[in-house]
Amino acid sequence: MSDDEIKNILVSLKNIKGIHGSAIIEKFGDISGSALPGWVDPEGVSAMVALILKASQRATKELDQGEFLNAIIENEKGKLLFSSIGDKIIVVVTTTDAKLGIVNLKLQAAREKLIK
Amino acid sequence: MSDDEIKNILVSLKNIKGIHGSAIIEKFGDISGSALPGWVDPEGVSAMVALILKASQRATKELDQGEFLNAIIENEKGKLLFSSIGDKIIVVVTTTDAKLGIVNLKLQAAREKLIK
Repeated sequence: MSDDEIKNILVSLKNIKGIHGSAIIEKFGDISGSALPGWVDPEGVSAMVALILKASQRATKELDQGEFLNAIIENEKGKLLFSSIGDKIIVVVTTTDAKLGIVNLKLQAAREKLIK
Repeated sequence: MSDDEIKNILVSLKNIKGIHGSAIIEKFGDISGSALPGWVDPEGVSAMVALILKASQRATKELDQGEFLNAIIENEKGKLLFSSIGDKIIVVVTTTDAKLGIVNLKLQAAREKLIK
């Protein structure tokens, strides 16, 4: 999948109401692509992915929970969604009024395109 | 709230189908109480809370998302639920077949008791 195709998917996610933007991060921290608002630092988003993966890895090791699939962090003024796609993680930054059902459907469609 | 009362709440959560156990962790890492199976190291659970809180703090700082409320990490063979209760975090370790709706209701009831 080309960088342009990745970019298109991320931009279409960003157009959904309640989504500030999204990014695709390699498991070792590199940013494969992003469509984030100007005020968001992609490196900061990558750092959050690293922390979530570390927590998941501890759960794998200590609780025998297997590989990471998804995560959600819900804060007072927004949510972060993380979803595993092959050896990458897609992160979506949303406001509190983003409907998780809709976001998950779109995310699922984006994942299917990205896996191809 | 006494240590015994905390323990009772954690034990009642543990009795729900699909829940391995739970623990209450202070934001600075101390374990206030736990009802975890013998094969789970409470220190490891505390370390996972620290990682989730770090990720949330970055989201607060860089994305202006405010205070941490809840998080879920979904792995292949289990889930981790984290929920803020005052200045503590309750963590619930579940199997994949735990029904999140039921767990969340019980968690809400436990939170209400714990906040008192």
